[in-house]
Amino acid sequence: MPKVSDEHRAARREQIFDAALRCVAREGFHKTTMAHVIAESGLSAGAVYGYYKGKPELIRAIAERAVGRFAGVLFEVADGPGPVTVPSALAAVIDRIDALLAETDGEFARVALHAWSEAARDDQVRAIVRGNIGYVREGWERVLARAEADGTLAPCPDRTATASALLSLTPGYLLQRLFLGDVEGPAYAAAFAALIES
Amino acid sequence: MPKVSDEHRAARREQIFDAALRCVAREGFHKTTMAHVIAESGLSAGAVYGYYKGKPELIRAIAERAVGRFAGVLFEVADGPGPVTVPSALAAVIDRIDALLAETDGEFARVALHAWSEAARDDQVRAIVRGNIGYVREGWERVLARAEADGTLAPCPDRTATASALLSLTPGYLLQRLFLGDVEGPAYAAAFAALIES
Repeated sequence: MPKVSDEHRAARREQIFDAALRCVAREGFHKTTMAHVIAESGLSAGAVYGYYKGKPELIRAIAERAVGRFAGVLFEVADGPGPVTVPSALAAVIDRIDALLAETDGEFARVALHAWSEAARDDQVRAIVRGNIGYVREGWERVLARAEADGTLAPCPDRTATASALLSLTPGYLLQRLFLGDVEGPAYAAAFAALIES
Repeated sequence: MPKVSDEHRAARREQIFDAALRCVAREGFHKTTMAHVIAESGLSAGAVYGYYKGKPELIRAIAERAVGRFAGVLFEVADGPGPVTVPSALAAVIDRIDALLAETDGEFARVALHAWSEAARDDQVRAIVRGNIGYVREGWERVLARAEADGTLAPCPDRTATASALLSLTPGYLLQRLFLGDVEGPAYAAAFAALIES
């Protein structure tokens, strides 16, 4: 057999992943099958199974990657140059989400919604979603600790609960971006900033 | 035929509605069929169809009732005794949601998640979800106008965007209540209040 380069393997893996993402955005996690993903990818069944052993592995890859791609920005802000403020962290997250939505033509939001729905029924997906939500909250806790240290925020009486409230701004934004026509990221982030700074 | 009292009809309608709610919480909107609802209700097909003409009508009833049952509290607060504050309105909404979650054993949250997912695929459900989200935002706009009039809030530069940000606190709370074990309504509302009052 010819030797396949790492680069080629990575590109192939990406091609399958993107096909799966489109299937899930269109049909939801539950109705998407490996047969759909194979057809969507344009590759052979053997090729697809060579990269992802089955649907659970694909679901895990999609769910984990989705949250990693935007929540990471909270850790970047928390560990970046200061002074760190809650509004600047929110603006950075919303900005990252807008980029993801533009890049995926809104698929990112639809996949998130399907993941939450599936998590209400399926234990494996629930574990992933729980991990994702916990990761975003951890990012906000880190931002809050940094903002307190930088003196831009009064000490939170209950930092985890404050992080929970801030976390809500992301799923709520995705929902509104998908279903209301008139929500804009910068205005949304600025309105929240005005609320907490007034 | 014997005359059926309005009271009897209302109780029957409620029985079918509750059966449908349980089916949707368990299976999602898409997989729930009238046959499931009929079996779950313990009534005959004829009886069920006498109250709901089909699945679309049931879906509409569930989606509309769910949001009406908690979003109404925002209008009550906005039109109630003052002075009205954003934290007091949030505490009232979260309190109402906690009551609904307790009453339905969490089904309320699962149905909401399934509705959002289904709305990403189905035009009819999308129209309902869009209407629901718009209604909640309208409630927040009313609260903001009242809080500004009562002098508990500085005038919002963009009231609709501020209402969007506040709206997010509800779906985010439902998600966290369902998937994280450690989120409590009063602490959540209090943490947000501390954030905007500090």
